[in-house]
Amino acid sequence: MSKLQGYHLAIMGATGAVGQQILKTLEKRDFPIRKLSLLSSARSAGKEITFKGQTIIVEEAVPEAFEGVDIALFSAGGSISEKFAHEAVKRGAIVIDNTSAFRMNPEVPLVVPEVNEQALHGHNGIIANPNCSTIQMVAALEPIKKAYGLQKVVVSTYQAVSGAGAAAINELEEQTNAILNNEDFSPSVLPVGSADKHYQIAFNVIPQIDQFSDNGFTLEELKMINETKKIMEMPDLKVAATCVRLPVETGHSESVYIEIEKDHVEVEDIKNTLLNAPGVTLQDKPTEQLYPMPAMAAGKEDVFVGRIRKDLDEETGFHMWIVSDNLLKGAALNTIQIAESLIKLGLVSNKQYS
Amino acid sequence: MSKLQGYHLAIMGATGAVGQQILKTLEKRDFPIRKLSLLSSARSAGKEITFKGQTIIVEEAVPEAFEGVDIALFSAGGSISEKFAHEAVKRGAIVIDNTSAFRMNPEVPLVVPEVNEQALHGHNGIIANPNCSTIQMVAALEPIKKAYGLQKVVVSTYQAVSGAGAAAINELEEQTNAILNNEDFSPSVLPVGSADKHYQIAFNVIPQIDQFSDNGFTLEELKMINETKKIMEMPDLKVAATCVRLPVETGHSESVYIEIEKDHVEVEDIKNTLLNAPGVTLQDKPTEQLYPMPAMAAGKEDVFVGRIRKDLDEETGFHMWIVSDNLLKGAALNTIQIAESLIKLGLVSNKQYS
Repeated sequence: MSKLQGYHLAIMGATGAVGQQILKTLEKRDFPIRKLSLLSSARSAGKEITFKGQTIIVEEAVPEAFEGVDIALFSAGGSISEKFAHEAVKRGAIVIDNTSAFRMNPEVPLVVPEVNEQALHGHNGIIANPNCSTIQMVAALEPIKKAYGLQKVVVSTYQAVSGAGAAAINELEEQTNAILNNEDFSPSVLPVGSADKHYQIAFNVIPQIDQFSDNGFTLEELKMINETKKIMEMPDLKVAATCVRLPVETGHSESVYIEIEKDHVEVEDIKNTLLNAPGVTLQDKPTEQLYPMPAMAAGKEDVFVGRIRKDLDEETGFHMWIVSDNLLKGAALNTIQIAESLIKLGLVSNKQYS
Repeated sequence: MSKLQGYHLAIMGATGAVGQQILKTLEKRDFPIRKLSLLSSARSAGKEITFKGQTIIVEEAVPEAFEGVDIALFSAGGSISEKFAHEAVKRGAIVIDNTSAFRMNPEVPLVVPEVNEQALHGHNGIIANPNCSTIQMVAALEPIKKAYGLQKVVVSTYQAVSGAGAAAINELEEQTNAILNNEDFSPSVLPVGSADKHYQIAFNVIPQIDQFSDNGFTLEELKMINETKKIMEMPDLKVAATCVRLPVETGHSESVYIEIEKDHVEVEDIKNTLLNAPGVTLQDKPTEQLYPMPAMAAGKEDVFVGRIRKDLDEETGFHMWIVSDNLLKGAALNTIQIAESLIKLGLVSNKQYS
């Protein structure tokens, strides 16, 4: 093999919604790749995918497919990660996993590079990419925490259907068409494909994302709560979440209420802090009706923050509105940024040279 | 004139979205009417409206149109109320006003009958119907306050376009069609008809309802904050709101976080309290995926509450999800319930007998 520049990357789940975004984002960022292995279930194996003008045939994922791989990006569901991540690590790859399989494992760093890149030093082969809703929130909250301290977070989400995969996008479009044309329809994907009941999403709002746990919170809500504490390294931070699915294709929005530690902080202080925050774009000019919206954030890499207000009754309380593309910063982009951080920190061994 | 049973009702704004719902609801509840005057702007005058099988011609609103009227229901915008409400009162009518014109006037009771019917005794001719988002929230919070005390409320809303009138409903439908058919469109109604900028609502989320005030809150958010304190007679209650418009036709949803006064209250206590609350229907069985949704609440009279959870980090914190038809309990129905309460309490003089 010629000494091409870059790393041997494997993408597990290459044909899925996030896998496709990963490929687009790798191209766009010109990630240093010398070899690209596209892996999938047996069902999708054999499909052809074009990457930088070259046709690559998708292979069925088997343990041996990870031989020689430097970095493996997993986004094919938790059970696939549980089955194959350790096989990849055993063969010397670093796995960046985009599922919830390992996120709360204390041995596994859970990373948003703008927030806790240093946690990568403690990795044992697997690094977890957080939940989409968590990523965009902690990107905005970390700089506030650093400047003013943080005591409490209450978030209500407005989440796009693309977070539930390509089938959910199709369901939204087909149902919307059916309703506008006065035709019958029969929901089968949302809120959760495997759940007993499915509900209309077109022109509706579903306050359930993922399954329910015994305490009445959904798993999505618990992910936001627990992952936020882990990423921000604040086990005692008070965090609560209500996660809601909307008839929006791409772009998660969040209404976030926080209580900080310092007194006498003003809206302009928070705005100035976010103006200089990495990965964050401030969109906050009420007089010009400038605030973030998913239709405008889709396809963009940043986390957009606006509607920042000081609570009228609580001296340390603030409100804000956070929007980001759930497939980009919420998934594909953050995954690739983790890989870039690993390279920057010298934490990836390039097998070509080893 | 024959001694027919009932009252002489006038409806100001009879041809609007709320006016139409008022007429439907009066029919449905068999409200005691001996004479019905339908009033509107000059533009809509002359239209014919069928009520209980009879055709009524809409008249242009002039002060003299209120002669002999017992109860006048206003829902034609704040400036119309400011112009005509006192004219109606001067002629002996009781005005129930569905605009924001008089809501925060200390002389004017602001009433949700399940919550503060007793406030009607203090009326001086005008009674205000609260903002739609406020009504459904206080209907659920009042029984909780009575049982456990209430210290803090943080609400994020998910509001339907019908709250912005018939033009907004048309805009949502036309835009949705345009996007599905890959056609151009040009927003002109939402978020605020008279604002400088208009944004896409189809498959999008707009975090602006009504104009902005100088403190960064919108007028809709300030309505929720101030009206909640007035209706619940809790000037020191901490209330904050973030109000958001969604691509939903009818039915407002609210993600509500509260802190109560009592310790050691459990989710089951809150559920039992709401199970017996007037005007409230509990829809809260996570194991059966039972929770309120706007598509199912539209056309129904009750306020639906579900997703009740105890906060995991705050002993007195609870979360809930409140949904109601914004045109019914949020507007037309509550207006008529106020009229019914006035009659029940003997506060309306029937001019036929006076």
